[in-house]
Amino acid sequence: MNQQTVRQLALPELTAACVKLGITGVGLWRQPVQDYGPSATARLVRDAGLTVTSLCRGGFFTALDPGERRRAVDDNRAAIDEAATLGTATLVLVSGGLPDGSRDLTGARERIADALAELAPYAGERGVRLAIEPLHPMFASDRCVVSTLAQALDLAERFPPEQVGVVVDTYHVWWDDRAPEAIARAGAGGRLAAFQLADWVTPLPEGVLLGRGQLGDGAVDLRGLRELVDAAGYEGPIEVEIFSPALWARDGVEVLTETVDRYLRHVAAECHGASEGDHATEGHFASEGGEEG
Amino acid sequence: MNQQTVRQLALPELTAACVKLGITGVGLWRQPVQDYGPSATARLVRDAGLTVTSLCRGGFFTALDPGERRRAVDDNRAAIDEAATLGTATLVLVSGGLPDGSRDLTGARERIADALAELAPYAGERGVRLAIEPLHPMFASDRCVVSTLAQALDLAERFPPEQVGVVVDTYHVWWDDRAPEAIARAGAGGRLAAFQLADWVTPLPEGVLLGRGQLGDGAVDLRGLRELVDAAGYEGPIEVEIFSPALWARDGVEVLTETVDRYLRHVAAECHGASEGDHATEGHFASEGGEEG
Repeated sequence: MNQQTVRQLALPELTAACVKLGITGVGLWRQPVQDYGPSATARLVRDAGLTVTSLCRGGFFTALDPGERRRAVDDNRAAIDEAATLGTATLVLVSGGLPDGSRDLTGARERIADALAELAPYAGERGVRLAIEPLHPMFASDRCVVSTLAQALDLAERFPPEQVGVVVDTYHVWWDDRAPEAIARAGAGGRLAAFQLADWVTPLPEGVLLGRGQLGDGAVDLRGLRELVDAAGYEGPIEVEIFSPALWARDGVEVLTETVDRYLRHVAAECHGASEGDHATEGHFASEGGEEG
Repeated sequence: MNQQTVRQLALPELTAACVKLGITGVGLWRQPVQDYGPSATARLVRDAGLTVTSLCRGGFFTALDPGERRRAVDDNRAAIDEAATLGTATLVLVSGGLPDGSRDLTGARERIADALAELAPYAGERGVRLAIEPLHPMFASDRCVVSTLAQALDLAERFPPEQVGVVVDTYHVWWDDRAPEAIARAGAGGRLAAFQLADWVTPLPEGVLLGRGQLGDGAVDLRGLRELVDAAGYEGPIEVEIFSPALWARDGVEVLTETVDRYLRHVAAECHGASEGDHATEGHFASEGGEEG
């Protein structure tokens, strides 16, 4: 469970609720980790018997100003250190958009490669993999010039697979008819670092960042994408990462419980008898995950 | 000039202003054409010495209900007839999104092909080409499951090039690193039916439909895309199509004048001495277009 899905829960509440619901790992964000303390967070999660599935996020490599780029690289080194402290192998990267006034997508993508060249060995030495996340093309100007999984792989493949991988997030790739071939390519190359879930719902809100939908509420063939990732040999965690003010306004544990149910109905490999009309139970999910909460 | 850019202008005002500014053609929309009358519109435009560069829009082929699909095909036949009456060779198609509750992008795309198979010969007999417009992936669920120029070509190439082509709209393709190769492919196959301009600006508004920017205000390398279309052998009209409440709230002739200026500064092949700081004049534009208004 990515922490952002239920950001209303403090870390101790989140870990307790995950344990109770049979959720086996948490994806964390830098700011709440820094607020709680990286070492204390690592201890909290470990003591609960959970894993840290990923740390979000590094990146923002596209500045033109040399000083700004230097600060970004330094900040990413700190993020790698935090990931290592947390014991996660995956640092998710949101690569950055176009600098103000620039229209040079190719140049921006090259600056990402330059930053990766500096950071990849540093990450690899610490057992952390940099995971390039392509963001939906509607974020290309202001957030991430890497818009497709194929582009992310074009970048990642310049580096060893244990140092740089890619993230498949259903929200960002669902529309792309070339995503299936890119998922297979990522799997064949050992580049699948993370798999994240959110659904696509419309109308998009102003600014479009916080418009993600609960699993099953939208247009994404979540199960089909999960099957593609499975077929590509991915055996890592599946994270649910939904940015939604509607979910944040509700009781966090209730949202987690609903999300587990939605996962079983719309994503999981086997429904254990749950049909579209049924509500799956905690027990189903725990047995699905192979661990009892 | 696409009519939507200055929808505040009635057809006679639009044509008069275009003549005055040296704009040589207008892209029209079905509703205002029907309101004015297709034959009367054709006469108005012809008498002004202008051409109709395109008619927007047909499409919306993705319904699952057979009756709804039948009605869509019939309505597109009417749109083809209107295009023929207007004397334009180009009917722009917005193909349609996912039906409510469906997550089957592949199936939706096939239903588009089925509709094209019915309509393409009818269009060809009337001298009208169906022009598939890929829309930005942020419209994939609710408006158009054809999200890239390559996808549009995959569909178009099932039919003769004089019957089915594609639209390159900078707003929809600017982010796509595979757009250059797709533009070349479209040119080589004789599929380039229309080239439309709008700029990409953020933040996107709620619903994202009406967030287009005036030329030069945003992230799109307009001149670079125009050069690609030129290099692909395109010699048809270049339309400016901006959906922007901010532009619609202003005096229409003032917006047209500004748009001509922006076109010269950010798109045109030669600036005729106009630099970023200068304001190009009507005369520049008219000489650019090769016709005096």
